[in-house]
Amino acid sequence: MTFQVFDTTLRDGAQREGISYSVVDKLAVARLLDDLGVGFIEGGWPGAVPKDTEFFRRAQGELDLRHALLVAFGATRRAGLAAADDPQVAALRDAGTPAVCLVAKSDLRHVERALRTTGAENLAMVADTVAHLVAEGRRVFLDCEHFFDGFRSDPAYTAAVVEAALGAGAERVVLCDTNGGMLPSWVAAAIGDLTGRLGVPAERLGMHAQNDTGCAVANTIAAVEAGVRHVQGTANGYGERPGNADLFTVVANLELKLGLRVLPEGGLARMVHVAHAVAEIANIAPDTHQPYVGAAAFAHKAGLHASAIKVDPLLYNHVDPPVVGNDMRILVTEMAGRASIELKSRQLGLDLADRPETLGRVTRRVKELEAGGWSFEAADASFELLVRDELADQAVPRPFTLESYRVLVEHREDAAVVSEATVKIRVRGERVIATAEGNGPVNALDEALRTALVRHYPGLRGFELADYKVRILEGSHGTDAVTRVLVETAGADGRDWTTVGVHPNVVEASWHALVDALTYGLSRVGAAT
Amino acid sequence: MTFQVFDTTLRDGAQREGISYSVVDKLAVARLLDDLGVGFIEGGWPGAVPKDTEFFRRAQGELDLRHALLVAFGATRRAGLAAADDPQVAALRDAGTPAVCLVAKSDLRHVERALRTTGAENLAMVADTVAHLVAEGRRVFLDCEHFFDGFRSDPAYTAAVVEAALGAGAERVVLCDTNGGMLPSWVAAAIGDLTGRLGVPAERLGMHAQNDTGCAVANTIAAVEAGVRHVQGTANGYGERPGNADLFTVVANLELKLGLRVLPEGGLARMVHVAHAVAEIANIAPDTHQPYVGAAAFAHKAGLHASAIKVDPLLYNHVDPPVVGNDMRILVTEMAGRASIELKSRQLGLDLADRPETLGRVTRRVKELEAGGWSFEAADASFELLVRDELADQAVPRPFTLESYRVLVEHREDAAVVSEATVKIRVRGERVIATAEGNGPVNALDEALRTALVRHYPGLRGFELADYKVRILEGSHGTDAVTRVLVETAGADGRDWTTVGVHPNVVEASWHALVDALTYGLSRVGAAT
Repeated sequence: MTFQVFDTTLRDGAQREGISYSVVDKLAVARLLDDLGVGFIEGGWPGAVPKDTEFFRRAQGELDLRHALLVAFGATRRAGLAAADDPQVAALRDAGTPAVCLVAKSDLRHVERALRTTGAENLAMVADTVAHLVAEGRRVFLDCEHFFDGFRSDPAYTAAVVEAALGAGAERVVLCDTNGGMLPSWVAAAIGDLTGRLGVPAERLGMHAQNDTGCAVANTIAAVEAGVRHVQGTANGYGERPGNADLFTVVANLELKLGLRVLPEGGLARMVHVAHAVAEIANIAPDTHQPYVGAAAFAHKAGLHASAIKVDPLLYNHVDPPVVGNDMRILVTEMAGRASIELKSRQLGLDLADRPETLGRVTRRVKELEAGGWSFEAADASFELLVRDELADQAVPRPFTLESYRVLVEHREDAAVVSEATVKIRVRGERVIATAEGNGPVNALDEALRTALVRHYPGLRGFELADYKVRILEGSHGTDAVTRVLVETAGADGRDWTTVGVHPNVVEASWHALVDALTYGLSRVGAAT
Repeated sequence: MTFQVFDTTLRDGAQREGISYSVVDKLAVARLLDDLGVGFIEGGWPGAVPKDTEFFRRAQGELDLRHALLVAFGATRRAGLAAADDPQVAALRDAGTPAVCLVAKSDLRHVERALRTTGAENLAMVADTVAHLVAEGRRVFLDCEHFFDGFRSDPAYTAAVVEAALGAGAERVVLCDTNGGMLPSWVAAAIGDLTGRLGVPAERLGMHAQNDTGCAVANTIAAVEAGVRHVQGTANGYGERPGNADLFTVVANLELKLGLRVLPEGGLARMVHVAHAVAEIANIAPDTHQPYVGAAAFAHKAGLHASAIKVDPLLYNHVDPPVVGNDMRILVTEMAGRASIELKSRQLGLDLADRPETLGRVTRRVKELEAGGWSFEAADASFELLVRDELADQAVPRPFTLESYRVLVEHREDAAVVSEATVKIRVRGERVIATAEGNGPVNALDEALRTALVRHYPGLRGFELADYKVRILEGSHGTDAVTRVLVETAGADGRDWTTVGVHPNVVEASWHALVDALTYGLSRVGAAT
């Protein structure tokens, strides 16, 4: 049977404390996961979470996935109601996805104490809902919540839930370690026991692991070694409590350790990029020590190793870093940095391979800026402007020069809050002063700048500020914290681009990102001349 | 044989990028690990690292360990030199520790390419150095570097290294997954093969795992299941690249999952404290999602669970949180309802169980605010203020009322960026006006407000703005985007609290969060009266 990589970043992963995706965020994450090449993207719980209902609605028109199928998640029908009449089941149908993933209680104690129904009714709920959705033409997966605890406490009942789902036409039944309390040897033993008991092959099963014992990845691998051919995980292991199995680590282990081909050609090499971009969207600092994709995943510090690494790097790295899109850092830092900058530039249509001096200058400049808190992982447009500046013949002309700006925010006695900005700039030899109001200081500044520029550059009327993210970066010894701002701008043609600004002052950081955004946008519409 | 918990936070863990312990730091970490109750503390590499030599010197007079033995780490003698004459071996003796841990190459490729000696000489180096230190009265451990890679490439040679060490009197030989590339099933198979080949019991072996496949904890557990009775790890998994096996997760799994008593009575309950204190000393933000000890390790968000958690918390937690010194936390989110709000309030000491009307009002208020973009899942302090407002008798008094404020940010002609804020407030009947500068608009506003309040509330001098997060939330149809600000404030007693503010204007949103932060903080120090 086909190996299935099933991502649940947008559903179970969104349970992580601190994560709150907008619908636009969810669409962007889905595109990144599709780039990586996962087979299934569980997008949310339509009907239960309004934002998820909206996501599935917009996905039908706006998502054009090449590899992945979109999956809607929901519960089995309520007790005492026909599946066809259950409004939650209707919401699942209405999501319009080719596949659905149902969650069912499989631990009799949860059935009786939390669901407050009987074991028999729960089995009927599973069978009815699966059969109904299969009849509606959906591919159906079933998550057995608390499978492992249930199977330990009452193996006959929990096995009956698995059997009911498979019997009703579920494509795969997923064994969930919902509390995350399992160890790999226990997972292997339970799967062996279950398949023996039911006489079904392990390929009909899937694995969903939580990381409460620090073994989510290992438990998933143990399930695959036991014959399971469907794994669930989330980007960077985001999820409730200590999180879910990190999909990136799982997939890299499957491909590089067990020799299974689970991603399409080229997917693995995009892993570092996808991991960091999802972190940016989730607004969570990437874990520099994450296996495979962390910035320090292949960074060697020990003097013990350093001398020998020169002899044979593969004796000191468990895999070759570029295979997952990463670099080895130590001694060869400069070389490794150059390689990824060259690659990234080439992706933007700028070939630096035969311009080693330019490549060196760009690499130094990026490293300097990164030391000061800049990050170009998600800010391709700022990166492209930087590279073009070093390629004298391709530098993007700056549409104006700044003299000064001033931003005022007042909370007045009548409780009204107003923001006003004034910019003084030079455009094509002319000095322009413009003032505008906005719903916040950055919006006011953006409006004032546009007002000052629009007569010379009418093309910027098509640009819209689509998203704005702020992160405070801790300073190192003796320095102040700095603020990093990411601005996403949407063009009239639907394409969008992201720019970055860094400064101790959030308004000044935003200014940098706004100026890059307009400069880049104008260069694209060919107006910045 | 006795189970040995061997900590290497101060030696291998110090290889983590960004960690740089002073000698005083190392002494403090050693005391914390001893409080936890580990059996061995590997303190460093005397002779090779000057700071480590100094640490062992001072440890003899200043460390009074109750449970742990101090261990000095070093390499086997150099090729062609008697162990007694090797200055590195002398430094190990001079460290004056009851135990030493030697590292030896056990992969023939490393012996030949990195050490540039013969396999036979390496075996002699192992045997000689172990025998010499045993004769000197030391307990001797031997780390087999690259054991698993070596054993796969040339099992006979690698097994011979293990045999040489045991034959010369090493107490345990530690199998190191130095590159971190192993999976649990591979570890188990290698140990079975090695013990069969040598005819030695697995209790004579130890395990040292790195986390490059995300399986360091699981690999360590697999080794114990295979009979190993010595585990190495580091506090919070600190270490080179993706780090070492997290000693806390390993120990909790051994005690709570495998039923092995590996710490003295009471040790496990100190784990959260020790984990966070070591993180403070290492100057690394604690991982809130770390298994067992993370602040979010037992934090439940999904409404699906919250209603049932009331019925039986142990159905939803894989272990009882206080056993490891942690608490269960319930997050209030868009997915939650009355049940989770009641539970959350109870954890804050506010019982709403017998006040259903109040509970209803709080639930409605939370849902209204959440629809407007507020989020209380990370903002316990704002949530508590909200609940208390609905409990008339427990409402927190507001320390002041606002008349107006004004914030100005200027980018001047000389490129200097300045921020200035003025607040006009009423405090205890007095009208106060204060102006302050800051490195950004919010910092200026915070400074101005503190300046205005401090004469009446000197207690706020102890509060420090510890973190500040900003998130732009998309508006739904026809409404503007709103900005959500989270402010984390640290009190003089080391406790911190988080507050939230939401408004289309980032400055006004920040103002709400700042005011909540001061109001809550002052109520805690009993000053807001």
